[in-house]
This record gives sequence, structure tokens and C-alpha cells, in this order.
Amino acid sequence: MIFLDAAATTPVRREVLDAMWPYLTGEFGNPSSHHSLGESAAAALAGARAAVSGVLGCRSGEVTFTSGGTEADNLAMKGIALARQATEARLNRVVISAIEHPAVEESARYLERFHGFAVDVIPVDGAGRVTLEALAAVLRPETALVSVMYANNEVGTVQPIAQLAALARSRDIPFHTDAVQAAGWLPLDVKALGVDALSISGHKLGAPKGCGALYVRGRTRIEPLVHGGGQERGRRSGTENVAGAVGLATALTLAHAQQLQTAERVAALRDRFIGAVLGTVPRAVLTGHPTERLPSVASFCFPGTSGESVLLELERQGVVCSSGSACAAGSDAPSPVLTALGIETEVAQTAVRFSFDSSISAVDLETAAQAVQAAVASVRTLGRT
Amino acid sequence: MIFLDAAATTPVRREVLDAMWPYLTGEFGNPSSHHSLGESAAAALAGARAAVSGVLGCRSGEVTFTSGGTEADNLAMKGIALARQATEARLNRVVISAIEHPAVEESARYLERFHGFAVDVIPVDGAGRVTLEALAAVLRPETALVSVMYANNEVGTVQPIAQLAALARSRDIPFHTDAVQAAGWLPLDVKALGVDALSISGHKLGAPKGCGALYVRGRTRIEPLVHGGGQERGRRSGTENVAGAVGLATALTLAHAQQLQTAERVAALRDRFIGAVLGTVPRAVLTGHPTERLPSVASFCFPGTSGESVLLELERQGVVCSSGSACAAGSDAPSPVLTALGIETEVAQTAVRFSFDSSISAVDLETAAQAVQAAVASVRTLGRT
Repeated sequence: MIFLDAAATTPVRREVLDAMWPYLTGEFGNPSSHHSLGESAAAALAGARAAVSGVLGCRSGEVTFTSGGTEADNLAMKGIALARQATEARLNRVVISAIEHPAVEESARYLERFHGFAVDVIPVDGAGRVTLEALAAVLRPETALVSVMYANNEVGTVQPIAQLAALARSRDIPFHTDAVQAAGWLPLDVKALGVDALSISGHKLGAPKGCGALYVRGRTRIEPLVHGGGQERGRRSGTENVAGAVGLATALTLAHAQQLQTAERVAALRDRFIGAVLGTVPRAVLTGHPTERLPSVASFCFPGTSGESVLLELERQGVVCSSGSACAAGSDAPSPVLTALGIETEVAQTAVRFSFDSSISAVDLETAAQAVQAAVASVRTLGRT
Repeated sequence: MIFLDAAATTPVRREVLDAMWPYLTGEFGNPSSHHSLGESAAAALAGARAAVSGVLGCRSGEVTFTSGGTEADNLAMKGIALARQATEARLNRVVISAIEHPAVEESARYLERFHGFAVDVIPVDGAGRVTLEALAAVLRPETALVSVMYANNEVGTVQPIAQLAALARSRDIPFHTDAVQAAGWLPLDVKALGVDALSISGHKLGAPKGCGALYVRGRTRIEPLVHGGGQERGRRSGTENVAGAVGLATALTLAHAQQLQTAERVAALRDRFIGAVLGTVPRAVLTGHPTERLPSVASFCFPGTSGESVLLELERQGVVCSSGSACAAGSDAPSPVLTALGIETEVAQTAVRFSFDSSISAVDLETAAQAVQAAVASVRTLGRT
């Protein structure tokens, strides 16, 4: 099997499992307990937090561990918007891009339904990019928060986050970015990016499912999403998932150490794969930005097929990929991301996404490209009969 | 070391780790993915859900996996109250007992601060029990939800949940119970209990930290706490922690299978331990109910000491326990639970809780009782000099 669905999830890296092991066995203390077992767990958690903050270029106290990327996005969106509105009632609008992950989009809609916020949506261009002009056009004195994802999960387009964040900051508006897909592939230094909040997820990086983190800058006020015993400096209650935090920290540190080299290598493989597909599959269309895209994502539409049929045929040939985000897998509706890029419904329904982790090889991608050619041809032939 | 702090957390059981192992290694699929790896993960998740629902005596679809007990409590409190208020605006009160876990209490306070709810607090008697009369006295036509914990985490008092829930139901008010401490020790059949929602936590049961579940009855409407891709039937978004769910299900199933026998054995050991402490430590006071208490919790105040000093002395002697809940460890304030039981501040600050898991032995508890006698005597002697 050639696994080309790493944007959906990745296997736990061996080093990550090794690092987690003590906290799944003998070192089982509750970090809040004031005895040796608890203190040992607290030290592990502090170490994990320091490692994550090292990669993000921030202070330890600015990192909050969560149960994953979706919770981190929810905490950022609701937490910052509600805390700002509580101190300044006129702040009742949030800005998101048209291609956000549902974790951001649905959090904005929750603010709309339950807290009277208006949601301003920034359109994207045909390559999925948010321009400075488009962001400037929606900012208002009432804007409590802006959220634009670092790199898109379906088409891989990378946003000019530093520029967008600088514009928001010039208006004193906090800026959040969902970096779940970017982490491991793109620079995550929050000061260089100039963001006030940034979400990451463990299981996209070689850590297990069920762990993530949110960076929140300095004294930014944030209302918790999960209330209770006051863990995580009061920002996220509940006994901390120590093993998960250690796993996330280990995976992020490993990915960061290898990032430059991995990103360059994988981007070259991606470009060769894209070239092979576009060169051998008639009418194939690359979706997303031709160059400003994740090294790890190659996404296409194959007009005259259905995405699901191509996937099935590819799986039969041993190539595992997806039609877009795993969250929307199996849905008949066209992807809102592709629609936002101006792709027609009929074409959007033929989308196939190939996504790679750092272990991807040239040979696998050559095999995969041949399989794509055969699969699309087969589906088109069947479709005609 | 004799570990008597199982109410704070427990080690992961070997069988649990074995069951989780495939989902931390080769079976790493995202349950939302429509390919073989994803389907295999989805099947594991479905199996875990069926196992949990088997123990709870409910349908699979009534079980929502969460990141832990605190999140489950937050989802129940906020989710049910907000969904009810959204359909019927006059429902703007919630009822909680005076000795709830902060996860419930702080969720109620959030509803008060951000959604205009009033919080009605049911007092408890000197043993920590909520009476039917006390509940009846606070119910109003505007009550959206009642939440009373099954068994208290600090003093072990068990509530008459079936009777309390029946009273709430007779007024058409949903009833939630935090069963985090009860799970593994008391019957969890949600139909026999008559509850509409029930929270459990993995790490109190021999599963890892970072997993929990919420039962929500049938068609009860609930607004999600974490919005996004619509996982868990739309009740809890985010890629599911498959290994955690499998771990929770395994731990709960194991605990349930052994429950009757374990509870009886441990309750007998607990009573012998309580007898030994009360018989050998002058002026020791048992806190909580003398008989209606968790088999696993023995809690005392030792007037004339400070709880923290006794803990330190006990740890020096190899006995690990706590002053009360781990969440509040290290706080100087007297426990709100003990205060609600009518215990004076000065006495409340001398609280020590001993809590056991199913592996506890008679010998360990005899050793521990002797250590308690010595530790209290030592602290009192030092205090006098």
C-alpha cells in the first residue's frame, strides 16, 4: 500500500512512542498532585511545553495543550472573541477566510448563533490565496478577531500570514492562524509570523490522535472553552494528557529539526508528481496555488470522472488517498473550499488529494502517478459505456 | 511506595495498553477516511462505543467520546442548557449541588457570566448528601438542567441519584450526573439510574489521561462544545482519539466485569482502615457519609495538624495520598466541599484523603494506618514545640 493521505492523519513515529512510553506506564502521576509521582508528571509536562515553545519561538506560558487541532481552533476563536467582547461590547464581528477548516468556520458560526457576532468572510482568488486588499476590505472597528489558515488542507495553498497578520496588528486586531497542516512543513516562529494565536495538531505530525496545542501571545485575554480545575494556567481545565503532550512535543521537535531538508526534498517530489499527472492524465487540473503550496499536498480535479470512483480504483491498485478533507469524506456536496476557488460544482466533485509525510519516496510517487493515469482512464471509460 | 491517591489518577492497566497498542502503531487510520485504513479505525471506534454502551445499558449512538471527564461535564452542562434555552428562552436556570467538581461548577458559572443563567445551588447535609427535599426546594419552571455528582471526589459520599433523577424527570427537567469517581465502583446502568446524561473519565479507571465519555439520552438536544467537522454525530468535532476510546472502553469493561466483587472486597478493607485510623489517631474525624460512600475513599480531618504537613510526613514514610482533589492541590483555601459539609475552616485545612484502586491489599492498608498514626502524632508534636 502506498499511503498518500497524510493530510488526514499520520502514523505515530517510533521516537514519539518511545518518548511517551514512560507516561503510559510507570510515570502515571497527575500533574496537579503534590507528591513525587505528580511532580514527575508535572516536570514531563513542563518539558513538553518548553519543547513546543522552543519550536514556536515563544515563552512556555504561551503554550496551552489541547485535545487536538479542532479544540485549539475552537479555543482561539471563541476564547479570544468572547474575552474581547466581554471587555468591549462593540467588538462583535469576526473575520475568517472563505476556505477555513470547519473547526474555525463552525466556531465563527457558533459565535454568530449564540453571541450575536457577525461573521465577515474574506474571499480567496482562484489559487486559494487571501490578498491583503481582500483582508483590508473586511476589517472594521468592530472586528474582534481575524482567523486565516496558514496552509489549506484540501488544496495546500499557503497564505502570506506575516503580511496579513501585520495588517491586522496595525489595526490592533488579534490574528489567529490554523497551522495544523503547515506544522512540520513551514516555519512556525510566531514572532516572525506576527500572529497572536496559532493552532497545531499532534496526529498530523507523527504524534497520536487526541493531542494538540494553541499558542496565545502574552497577555491576550482568552475565555476558556473547557472550564474546571484551572489547569493550563486556567486556559484549559481537565487533567492534562501528559503522554499526549510529550508525544506532540517530540513529534514537533523532530519535524522542526528536519524541516528545511524535508520540505525541499518533498517539494521536489511533489512537483515531479504533479508534472507526471498533468502530463499523462488528459484534462487534469491542479487545484490550489502552483507554487505557494505545501510541499506535502498535490490536489487535482479530473473532469469527466467522479472523485469517489477514482479513489476506489486507486485503492484497488494499492494507492490510498482522499477526495479532500477527511472530515467531509463521503459527503455528496461539493467541497466549499473548491467552490470558493471558483471551481464549478461538477468539476469540484472530481477532486482527488494526494498528501505525503516525510517518508515519501520517489519510487512510490512514480508508481502512484501511473496508477492515477490508469485509474482516471478506467473511470472515464466506464463512465462512457 | 503505597499509592493511596487513586481518586487523582490510576496507572494504565496492562490489558488496556495491549488493547490500545494497534491503534498507536499500524492501525493509525482517521475514522472519517473512506479507505481501508480509515474504515478499520472507524470499526475500532464503533467497537469501543458498543462496549461503553454495553456497560451503561444504552444505545451506541448515545455515547459521545470526549477528551476526559472535565470535557464531558462541560459538554453536558453547557450543551444541554444552551440547547434548551435556544428552543425555550425562559429556561434560564441551572441547578447544581454545593459539592460538585469544578468542571460542573465552573461550567454553571460560565452559563451565568455569558448566557444570563442563574445558578441554584442545592445544599448538602453534614455527610455530604443531597436530599430529595433540598432538590425539590430549588426546582423551578425555568430550570433547564440539574446536575448532581454520583459520588464525591473528596469525601466519597454517594448520592441517591435514582431518586433525585426521578424527581427531576417528574418535572421534565433533564438530569446530569458526574460519574467520574463512581465509575468502576457503582452501578452505571443509565436506565436504572434514570439519568439523561452521565460523564465518565478514562484515567480514573485504568485508561490513559485524555479520554472520557458522555452519555446523553436519546433525542436530548445538545449544543456542541467543540465545533467543526461533525464527528461523534455532530456532538463533538475533531479527529477521534481512537486509541484513547479503545482504552477507555477496555478499562470500563474490565472494571464493570469485576465491579461487584471488587467493590465488596475494597469496601471491607476501607472499613477496616477507617476503623484503624479512628481507633488509633486521637480526635480523627471521618468526613463524608459513614456508609453511603465509595468503597475506594477514606477521608479524614486531623484537628491540630495541617493537612499538608501530614501528607509530607506520610510520603516520607512511603504512603502517597492527597489533601483532597488533585485539582485544588497546593491551594491554601479550605476545600469548598468540606465547607459545604459544615466543617470549620481550621478543621477543613487538616483534611487528608486516601483513595484506592482495585489492586489495594489488606497489608498495604495496615501499614498505611500505622503510618497515619505516626504521621499525625509527629506533626502534632512538632506543632506544639
